[in-house]
Amino acid sequence: MSAEIVSTGTELLLGHTLNTNAQYIAERLAALGVYCYYQTTVGDNADRIGLVIENALNRADIVITTGGLGPTMDDLTKEVVADLFGLPMEMHPDHLAKIEAFFQRRGRKMPENNKKQAMLPAGSQAIPNHLGTAPGVIVEQGDKIVILLPGPPFEMRPMFEETVVPYLAAKTKINPGVLHSRTLKVVGPGESVIEDRLRDLLTAQSNPTIALLAKTAEVHVRLTARARTETEAAALMGELEGEIRQRLHPYVYGVDEESLASVVGTLLKERNLNLAIAESCTGGYIAHQITNVPGSSDYFLLGLASYANSAKENVLAVDEETLRTYGAVSPETALAMARGVRRLAGSDIAAAVTGIAGPGGGTEEKPVGLVYAAFVAGDKEEVEKLQLFGDRVTIKEKTTYAVLNRLRVYLAEEVRP
Amino acid sequence: MSAEIVSTGTELLLGHTLNTNAQYIAERLAALGVYCYYQTTVGDNADRIGLVIENALNRADIVITTGGLGPTMDDLTKEVVADLFGLPMEMHPDHLAKIEAFFQRRGRKMPENNKKQAMLPAGSQAIPNHLGTAPGVIVEQGDKIVILLPGPPFEMRPMFEETVVPYLAAKTKINPGVLHSRTLKVVGPGESVIEDRLRDLLTAQSNPTIALLAKTAEVHVRLTARARTETEAAALMGELEGEIRQRLHPYVYGVDEESLASVVGTLLKERNLNLAIAESCTGGYIAHQITNVPGSSDYFLLGLASYANSAKENVLAVDEETLRTYGAVSPETALAMARGVRRLAGSDIAAAVTGIAGPGGGTEEKPVGLVYAAFVAGDKEEVEKLQLFGDRVTIKEKTTYAVLNRLRVYLAEEVRP
Repeated sequence: MSAEIVSTGTELLLGHTLNTNAQYIAERLAALGVYCYYQTTVGDNADRIGLVIENALNRADIVITTGGLGPTMDDLTKEVVADLFGLPMEMHPDHLAKIEAFFQRRGRKMPENNKKQAMLPAGSQAIPNHLGTAPGVIVEQGDKIVILLPGPPFEMRPMFEETVVPYLAAKTKINPGVLHSRTLKVVGPGESVIEDRLRDLLTAQSNPTIALLAKTAEVHVRLTARARTETEAAALMGELEGEIRQRLHPYVYGVDEESLASVVGTLLKERNLNLAIAESCTGGYIAHQITNVPGSSDYFLLGLASYANSAKENVLAVDEETLRTYGAVSPETALAMARGVRRLAGSDIAAAVTGIAGPGGGTEEKPVGLVYAAFVAGDKEEVEKLQLFGDRVTIKEKTTYAVLNRLRVYLAEEVRP
Repeated sequence: MSAEIVSTGTELLLGHTLNTNAQYIAERLAALGVYCYYQTTVGDNADRIGLVIENALNRADIVITTGGLGPTMDDLTKEVVADLFGLPMEMHPDHLAKIEAFFQRRGRKMPENNKKQAMLPAGSQAIPNHLGTAPGVIVEQGDKIVILLPGPPFEMRPMFEETVVPYLAAKTKINPGVLHSRTLKVVGPGESVIEDRLRDLLTAQSNPTIALLAKTAEVHVRLTARARTETEAAALMGELEGEIRQRLHPYVYGVDEESLASVVGTLLKERNLNLAIAESCTGGYIAHQITNVPGSSDYFLLGLASYANSAKENVLAVDEETLRTYGAVSPETALAMARGVRRLAGSDIAAAVTGIAGPGGGTEEKPVGLVYAAFVAGDKEEVEKLQLFGDRVTIKEKTTYAVLNRLRVYLAEEVRP
């Protein structure tokens, strides 16, 4: 069974609104095992909306639209679909009553033009909308289905979950396969390096399929198996996952919803160790990532964004001599910062970064993207030199990944729980 | 002149990635006065990509694609377009050299499969990519144009601005009407409050149009005027902007690319003041936002994420008595943290937050989302109590906005430059 997503709204064509509805619906369709090969966005124009829906119906069993169910003149989707199927519009008094009640609750009288929202194509099924005035619509004709949903995500999402998901689940009973996905998260090697290592697997892929997705500072390897049950899917994916993990070792840091920071947090808890961070060029981003993890207060003692040299000296006790001789961006300063924050927080482990995030401040021998990352734990002391590329925020993010990954490898490989 | 946007990538069809590229390009096209009636998303499948581009070329003068320029086997867009136009692919040694240099800078050898990125359709124009290995491509044939851009937004956006915008601006000389947009950024009141205050303006809107866009912690009011010149557009928007600013005073913090942190930074520089921050529940996010602004090292001295009580005591010198009596989440602790970080950094101004970001840690009298924000400047000392709602990251973000906005109002309204 296949579906297409049609997003309507001139605000989407003008780029005033980010189309989060299409992503939401696409993800849910995939989870339901409904194939989706195309998404289309079109403005508030009856002719073009009609063409797009007609075209989509020629390719797919189901067309799901968002937008154009409002009370105004440029809300057209429902009328277009009724035309397309040659269905008259019928007034539904029960929905009219709901809409009037909606305005009553807000102490307002229903504007005349909202009546239009109680009109549905003859023989269609309404999708209740508890958060707005526009009911959704399911129109079936022959083996084709059109599902119309409103544009505001906070109305569309609950309607999709409450009514559309059960409806599609029932329809897809006949569907032979359901998609189960598992994402391996890889930090370190780039997309093309990973493809080199997995080339034969990528070429031979059938079920499960393998997809590589490059992010700013990591790569996701997504396995998608088509199977009747979770167990069957797990069996299909297990062996392949093991093989991929082995080939990419030690760079697979986690799966699915795990973040690099959450994995580091789990390892710190297991080993009963705590952490402090001193940041110059990342300016608090490493601490932010670590503290995005619920419960991070159990192991994260202190984050210090020592942006000014005065702060490096006075708070972290970085020797003024060191700063003068080697400069703020140097292995010596990075190490002194790590020692300083560890002493200050009395933590088991500490990391520190100093570098040039840009766009300004770069020189011939110290270009933008040059970062020194220091790491102290037990009696281990080390400094890594990084040369990163990208804009200011990208360099902050890549630096953060490098630091968190060093912590992960240390905790996973070099400490016994 | 009309264009269509074609986004390629199976990750988009599966809903694994949010399509921000389409919005970005759509907004820029509108600003250039290039009409865009359709956006299409298609997976990494040569046949379907071909069909979509062919279909788009039948409707529009220009087709702009994103994605599918990578080194891997499922990167197909360039090859599909070459086929469509019957153009052979040609190796460009200069681009190959750039790609090899790209890997060299990272101290890595170029993988074989990256060579493919130096192949371009015969007679096409390359779009330089300074942040990645994939050059973009402009293919002209007769009166049709196809522009191919890579998928990663941080690569796509600068390429679009540097090469595509000037290229399209030259092409669209003939276009009669051009859209000019200006976004007023509002922090404080919610979308519906703003809608109430602007209702008559929103109802009466024609040229310029007014759009409200709600974000996590702010609302954008976008004015879009259709005019032949920037000056004409400015004249059209000027009066309306003034009226809106007056009705929303003092909540309009900036326009267009300005961020709350960049506005605070500009005010600090103008008034020659510097800043230190102590964070508990936001865990470094405030410092991260402040240091995202280039040149923030001029005025940001120190950020301290004092997550553990021990850090609050030992580093910020928060009285152990205060912590025991009132608890870590209390006005007393917030104020002590602000005083402590100001003393530590020797800064003119300091702010501190302590609260419960959740999901755990909430109690009857101190629920999740309870935050105390302290602010010290000159001899002013104050603490604000906030009750915020949302998940952990949302609470961090809303807290950060509250703190930055307090700084903005203080600097803009209470200090003379």
